[in-house]
Amino acid sequence: MRTRAAVALEAGKPLEVMDVELDGPKAGEVMVEIKATGICHTDEFTLSGADPEGLFPAILGHEGAGVVVEVGEGVTSLEVGDHVIPLYTPECRECDYCLNPKTNLCQAIRSTQGQGVMPDGTSRFRMTDGTPILHYMGCSTFANHTVMPEIALAKVRRDAPFEKICYIGCGVTTGIGAVINTAKVEIGSRAVVFGLGGIGLNVIQGLRLAGADQIVGVDLNPDKRAMAERFGMTDFVNPGDVSGDMVAHLVELTGGGADYTFDATGNVDVMRTALEAAHKGWGESVIIGVAPAGAEIATRPFQLVTGRVWRGTAFGGARGRTDVPRIVDWYMDGKIEIDPMITHTLSLENINEGFDLMHRGESIRSVVVY
Amino acid sequence: MRTRAAVALEAGKPLEVMDVELDGPKAGEVMVEIKATGICHTDEFTLSGADPEGLFPAILGHEGAGVVVEVGEGVTSLEVGDHVIPLYTPECRECDYCLNPKTNLCQAIRSTQGQGVMPDGTSRFRMTDGTPILHYMGCSTFANHTVMPEIALAKVRRDAPFEKICYIGCGVTTGIGAVINTAKVEIGSRAVVFGLGGIGLNVIQGLRLAGADQIVGVDLNPDKRAMAERFGMTDFVNPGDVSGDMVAHLVELTGGGADYTFDATGNVDVMRTALEAAHKGWGESVIIGVAPAGAEIATRPFQLVTGRVWRGTAFGGARGRTDVPRIVDWYMDGKIEIDPMITHTLSLENINEGFDLMHRGESIRSVVVY
Repeated sequence: MRTRAAVALEAGKPLEVMDVELDGPKAGEVMVEIKATGICHTDEFTLSGADPEGLFPAILGHEGAGVVVEVGEGVTSLEVGDHVIPLYTPECRECDYCLNPKTNLCQAIRSTQGQGVMPDGTSRFRMTDGTPILHYMGCSTFANHTVMPEIALAKVRRDAPFEKICYIGCGVTTGIGAVINTAKVEIGSRAVVFGLGGIGLNVIQGLRLAGADQIVGVDLNPDKRAMAERFGMTDFVNPGDVSGDMVAHLVELTGGGADYTFDATGNVDVMRTALEAAHKGWGESVIIGVAPAGAEIATRPFQLVTGRVWRGTAFGGARGRTDVPRIVDWYMDGKIEIDPMITHTLSLENINEGFDLMHRGESIRSVVVY
Repeated sequence: MRTRAAVALEAGKPLEVMDVELDGPKAGEVMVEIKATGICHTDEFTLSGADPEGLFPAILGHEGAGVVVEVGEGVTSLEVGDHVIPLYTPECRECDYCLNPKTNLCQAIRSTQGQGVMPDGTSRFRMTDGTPILHYMGCSTFANHTVMPEIALAKVRRDAPFEKICYIGCGVTTGIGAVINTAKVEIGSRAVVFGLGGIGLNVIQGLRLAGADQIVGVDLNPDKRAMAERFGMTDFVNPGDVSGDMVAHLVELTGGGADYTFDATGNVDVMRTALEAAHKGWGESVIIGVAPAGAEIATRPFQLVTGRVWRGTAFGGARGRTDVPRIVDWYMDGKIEIDPMITHTLSLENINEGFDLMHRGESIRSVVVY
C-alpha cells in the first residue's frame, strides 16, 4: 500500500515528506495506522548524524500511538481495531532477558532492529521508485502507516487520546519508569533531577507520584522553572547562579546528599556531578541521558566505596506490553499529567518545524497528528 | 600503664617495636588486651606513605582480637573478660547511618577517628618520653593493649581462637560481606573475582557460601590458583594467558557476562574490566579494593544505561557489632574456612617480617600473636 511519511534521506538534512510504499505484515507482524507521534531528541540525535549507528535512508520516529489495521499470520494478541503504542524496546516474554526480573531489555529482535529491518531481515518500506527505506528503532512512527512485530506493540484502552498518549511511547515512560522501576524511589526520599526537558519533567512527576519529600531540579535555563514546579519540583537550582562547587551546593541543599539523583542531560560531566551529589552511604544515581559517541563518565572509586551506586536506565526499565497500558491508565485516571508538556501540535507536512522548535529550546514536546 | 607496641614513626620506615604508655579508658571506652592481629594491605598503604590521610607517629593495625581488661564509665555492653574484635567501622546504632538499613557506615566517631584520636579529641598512647602517639583506624591493634570506644568492639564467643578470628576484623568480613551484604548474590549466580589475595579468597568463599554456580578467579599470578580452588573457585583466568580483549574473554566464559563481579585489586583499569564483564541488563560490579590517591574509574555511560550497576563496599557492608559475631560462629561451625589463609604467624618483635612477606607476595595473611 501507499502511505505518507517523512523520510530521513541523509544525515544533517531536513526530513522529506513523501509518499512511500509499505508492504503488508508478514508472520508475527502487525500493520498500524499511526495517529500521532512525538518528536524526541533521539530522532534528532540520529538525524543530525551524531549517532554512529544511524542508517539512511530511514523513516524515523519512535514515540507514537495508533490503530491496528492488519495482522499477519500467527498474531494472537492483537486484532484489527486495537489501539496500540509502538515499543522500541519490545517484550517477547520468552528470551533470557524477559525471563529475568531485573531487566527490561528484551533481546528477541535486537540485531535486526539495529539494522533497520524487520526480524526476517527485510524492510517493509520503499520509495515509489523501489529504493528500500529502513525502519528506525523498530517503530518508524514518522509514517502514517507502519509495520511492526507483534511483540513490539502495547495494547492500550480505546478511550485514550492518541495525540497525548503517544508521549508514553518514550518520554513519559522513560522519566517515570526511571523513578519507579529503576531507582525504586521510596516515599519521603530526597531527589535531584538534572535537566528539565521532556524527560526531566517526567522524572519529576514520577518522583511526585512516588511520594518524594524534596524534588530539586537543576537547569541552566531559568525559563524551565515554572513548568517543573507545576509537575512537583520543590527547589530549583540554576548552576549559573551557584558560586563554588555544585556538588557541595546540592549536598547542602539536600541535607547531606540526595537519596536519588537522575541525569536527563546526556552530559558526562553532569553525570559525575549527579553521582557525587548522591548521599554517602546509600545515594543512587541513575543515568537516563544519551551521551555523545565515545564520551566517558569518571569519578574516584572512593565515591562508590563509600556507598553511592551508579546505574542507568533504558525506557525507564519498563516492560512495554505490561507497563505501558498501566501508564496510559494513570494518565486517564489523572495520576499523571501529559497535556501541559505537549507544547506544539503539527501536521506531518510541517514536521521539520518540530525539529526547529526543539533546536531553539521552545518546545517541551511537539507532536505530529496525522 | 606500660605496654608493648610496634610504632610507625614516619612514612616509609619499618615499624619500631617499643614500650609505650597507655592511659586507661575514659567514659564510653574500653581497654582491650590484644591477643592477635593480622597485617593488612591497608596498614601497608599507610605505612608506605601512599595514604594521603596517613598521620604519624601512630600505632597501626586494625585486624585484631582480644580480651576486655578494663571498662570506662558508662560502658554497659561489655565487661572485663569479654572476648572482642575491634571494629574500624563502628556501630553506634543511633546515628542517621546506623538507622538507615542501606548502609553500614556509622558516622558517630568518624571525624576523630580520622584524626587519630579518641572521640574526646585526645590520644591514649604516648611514648615513654611523653611524645603523643596517634591511634589508627580507631583500633591500633599493633599494640598489646589498646583503648577503643565501646561502639567499636564486637563481642564474640570465648571459645574462638584469637589467632584465627582476628582476620574477621577486616579481610574475612570485607570479602564475604561484599558478597552477602553488598551484592546480595543469589543461589545459582555466576561471578568473577579480580585479585586472589586475602580479600579475593574471602570473596570466593563468600560466593561458595551464597551458592554461586560459577566462580571465576582472575589473577596474574598462577600460584594463586590452588588456594583459590580450595575456597571454591571453579575457573581460573590469568590475564597474561588471554590473547585479545579480557572483557570479551570473560563474557564468553560466563555465558554472556557475570551476574556479579568483584574488584579486589585496587587497580582502576581492572575496575573498568570488572564492570564491563558484568552481564548486560542486570550484572553488578562491586569495588572492594582501595585505589591509589587521585586515581579515577571511567567507562562509557552506555555500560550503565544497558543495565550494569556499579557499586562499592567498605568492611563488606557489615555492621560490626551485629554481623561480626555471626561470622565468628560461621567459622566455628565450619561454614567458612580461615586457617589455610593464615600462612604465617609472628611475634610482635618480628612484625616487620610480616610486611616483607606481603611485599614479596609470599603470604596470604601474616598474624602477630602476642
